[in-house]
Amino acid sequence: MKKPLILVSNDDGITSLGIRALVEAMSEIGKVIVVAPDSPQSGMGHAITIGNTLRLDPSIAFKDLKNVEAYECSGTPADCVKLAKHQVLKDRKPDLVVSGINHGSNSSISVLYSGTMSAAIEAAIEDIPAIGFSLCNFDALADFSHVKKYVKKITQQVLENGLPRGVALNVNFPQKSKNPIKGIKVCRQARAKWQEKFDERQDPHGRRYFWMIGNFVNYDKGDDNDEWAIANNYVSIVPCQFDMTAHHAIAYLNDEWKLN
Amino acid sequence: MKKPLILVSNDDGITSLGIRALVEAMSEIGKVIVVAPDSPQSGMGHAITIGNTLRLDPSIAFKDLKNVEAYECSGTPADCVKLAKHQVLKDRKPDLVVSGINHGSNSSISVLYSGTMSAAIEAAIEDIPAIGFSLCNFDALADFSHVKKYVKKITQQVLENGLPRGVALNVNFPQKSKNPIKGIKVCRQARAKWQEKFDERQDPHGRRYFWMIGNFVNYDKGDDNDEWAIANNYVSIVPCQFDMTAHHAIAYLNDEWKLN
Repeated sequence: MKKPLILVSNDDGITSLGIRALVEAMSEIGKVIVVAPDSPQSGMGHAITIGNTLRLDPSIAFKDLKNVEAYECSGTPADCVKLAKHQVLKDRKPDLVVSGINHGSNSSISVLYSGTMSAAIEAAIEDIPAIGFSLCNFDALADFSHVKKYVKKITQQVLENGLPRGVALNVNFPQKSKNPIKGIKVCRQARAKWQEKFDERQDPHGRRYFWMIGNFVNYDKGDDNDEWAIANNYVSIVPCQFDMTAHHAIAYLNDEWKLN
Repeated sequence: MKKPLILVSNDDGITSLGIRALVEAMSEIGKVIVVAPDSPQSGMGHAITIGNTLRLDPSIAFKDLKNVEAYECSGTPADCVKLAKHQVLKDRKPDLVVSGINHGSNSSISVLYSGTMSAAIEAAIEDIPAIGFSLCNFDALADFSHVKKYVKKITQQVLENGLPRGVALNVNFPQKSKNPIKGIKVCRQARAKWQEKFDERQDPHGRRYFWMIGNFVNYDKGDDNDEWAIANNYVSIVPCQFDMTAHHAIAYLNDEWKLN
């Protein structure tokens, strides 16, 4: 069987430990092209660079690994996938796009803010099977050793079976602990949100500025969602789509509103 | 009846013509608080500022209007809504959040890249009725005069009837032409995408850089989607949700995959 062509990106930047863990795993499966941000892009959501220029340069980040060709980009994760497809791969279509492994959870509502998942969603828009991987540990020196076998297993499943059209997977791993991971659960996105606070400070010139801080609030009592799975030491997989239409609301608006 | 409290934001920045048109319309309906970016934030998607500080300062942008209090923010549209809620309004809940009027379409797949819509979606996460308005004309001097009556009509409907929980409206207006707008259509998001190209150039130091350019490609043959509505001179309304779960794919993955 021909080696699959796998595109790797992330949002923590090309020098993070998480992308190294992912590239190492992918280099055992296929031919790997890395196009990743040259600096951290966490929280960038599905941002793209339209009012500014983009840089794209070869990177030495993975020169110790076989089967890997790497580029760093000044843009967002979504930019990286677009540049990879049209500029680096010259419209050779990858067999798979993987993003991560993110330092920190992208479960529940965080999928909207996640640069990691935007790279995967961008690939799904291009009709390429895609997976975003995240570890529930924000530490820059987080231990990724316990997730490698799951990364490879889920990747192999997608390479063998594909994914439904327009669907990308949001995979979150519990952080390493004494308790081994119990298995994998396919989930829905939990109903939860971030409850922000703003830490107000004064700069040396007397002008105020703010840091955004926040607590994660989980309203969801179900046992079929990603927060439940992670809290119970399962790997969560949420299939995600980019059709944001609230289809159930179309009939409601047509019936209840006087629009015309 | 008590005047409603309406929060206004956008992604083109607080000095754009589009937000002025929206603030003027809203000031005829209720008490208006503006928290908008101090510079253009187009294409920022649902980005938030977590690795950097935020500024928030009073703005003179609307001092000629009654019922309007305005602030400009260094962050993204989603940041603006979060700062408005927790810092400016001190957790007084607005009756409505409106965003725009964007200079340029946010129909179809553009909803993902849209800062305008991220402000509305952010409000929906906070359980506040929300509408993103966009005009299909990117010109900084675009004519917004033909849409005011529709902005007010849709706003009044939302104030009177509310919206289903977790739903924000993505409203797109045809640009001004000789032909009057035919009416309003409630739609689904069209199946379409941007086909990017990268314009490669050399900087004065001999290093290459890129501009992202692209063509919009509409694959959708239906007459119930937003692209059809706009092309046929209707105002399109797509109800949007922030649950990105592809619910139909959960059973497929559980049935077809060998995960455990």
